[in-house]
Amino acid sequence: MSYAERMLQNTSSKPSMDAQALAECIKACLDCEQACTACADACLGEQDTKMLARCITLDLDCADVCAATGRVLSRQTAFDMAMARAVLQACTQACKLCGDECATHAQHGMQHCQVCMEACRRCEQACNQLMAA
Amino acid sequence: MSYAERMLQNTSSKPSMDAQALAECIKACLDCEQACTACADACLGEQDTKMLARCITLDLDCADVCAATGRVLSRQTAFDMAMARAVLQACTQACKLCGDECATHAQHGMQHCQVCMEACRRCEQACNQLMAA
Amino acid sequence: MSYAERMLQNTSSKPSMDAQALAECIKACLDCEQACTACADACLGEQDTKMLARCITLDLDCADVCAATGRVLSRQTAFDMAMARAVLQACTQACKLCGDECATHAQHGMQHCQVCMEACRRCEQACNQLMAA
Amino acid sequence: MSYAERMLQNTSSKPSMDAQALAECIKACLDCEQACTACADACLGEQDTKMLARCITLDLDCADVCAATGRVLSRQTAFDMAMARAVLQACTQACKLCGDECATHAQHGMQHCQVCMEACRRCEQACNQLMAA
Repeated sequence: MSYAERMLQNTSSKPSMDAQALAECIKACLDCEQACTACADACLGEQDTKMLARCITLDLDCADVCAATGRVLSRQTAFDMAMARAVLQACTQACKLCGDECATHAQHGMQHCQVCMEACRRCEQACNQLMAA
Repeated sequence: MSYAERMLQNTSSKPSMDAQALAECIKACLDCEQACTACADACLGEQDTKMLARCITLDLDCADVCAATGRVLSRQTAFDMAMARAVLQACTQACKLCGDECATHAQHGMQHCQVCMEACRRCEQACNQLMAA
Repeated sequence: MSYAERMLQNTSSKPSMDAQALAECIKACLDCEQACTACADACLGEQDTKMLARCITLDLDCADVCAATGRVLSRQTAFDMAMARAVLQACTQACKLCGDECATHAQHGMQHCQVCMEACRRCEQACNQLMAA
Repeated sequence: MSYAERMLQNTSSKPSMDAQALAECIKACLDCEQACTACADACLGEQDTKMLARCITLDLDCADVCAATGRVLSRQTAFDMAMARAVLQACTQACKLCGDECATHAQHGMQHCQVCMEACRRCEQACNQLMAA
């Protein structure tokens, strides 16, 4: 069981949203933040860094948005749905943009972009599922 | 001149948006992040912390969203407008929610909420002006 | 396999430190950041918030330090050992202080503090092991 | 007057350290975080990005450490000196490393590195002065 799940189960307040979708989304945000941070770094080690400038930028942006989203969702005691929706929408968009950019480089053999794309797609999906729940 | 302005002037890429509105928005995001972080902390020192649980939560949320927004806007080399719009919309909403909550406590004499509300209003306005520019 | 492990394996640069200890430390930092963020929030929902002010503060501090540490460690392409040591030392100290505080509340039945203490202890240990590696 | 100063004056708890040195250090951390974020981005727009990989990495690392430090210092209600010292030491080191790296590129005409170096030097000094106070 992840720490996010354990924390949700050991908090006196009831989670504001479906607990499983919430825990998955928090975890997906953390993983995506890490994958994006590492992908931006791995891009710096590639031969043609210039071609990867947009990827590096979207990676860094997406990491920051995912970090904020994971934190907002982790605060359940005085949860505010409008705040959550605002960051979830931004996170969905950030993951979509970054995932699309990584997809093009993954097709040209950049494996870190492949892993990062998967993390972005999963996070985008988890955000959408949480908003639908 | 702020560091944000100096950095914008000393970068080879041209800023994607009106440079003055951009520098002001970056600065407003940083200030709002700090004011919200300090306001959440000051709320912890008040007598009736329970009543301030929502304020503390929105402060912490708003600080995280402002931090992400300030960073995304600081990246101009491979700037992506869709990414910027997504975080600016989230930031506008976060500052509105947090500013409204702080306003109610400011009316009851909490001066840190008064200062924080001002930082939130200014940041909300700067985000709106940047999106309109 | 965690995203951190997959990213380390799919980056052209060789990790600067023992890859397994590095991946574990990155993961422990992310988990500890999340557990601390959620513990600060859960403390807000407890009856005697005043008594928990120090716990909330150390939780928030520790979350921020863990976040920075996880990111620094995720950047391996132009890794700088002095930078890594500096943040690892801060992180070890932050996790020790926060873990000790949570331990006292865990003894009085606060289960979120128990989970958070475990995350802090694990992160402290992972940082120490990485510095020893 | 900065928001950091106004927040310190409008909080019921007395600041744990010299208020002026504290406000200056918080402000220097925020400015340095922003300058480092923008410098990493500006480096991406330069012709020889490869040569700047270490600068970009140290910029990103330093931004993250400064962000954490500015937040820890902004929390004064249940301030913990050991926590503050740990992050201040990491921040001093991060600013030293990043400032030194930027200094070498500033000498070769990179103006964003010049501005970033100044932000790093100021933050390093502010951290040292706060630890001495």
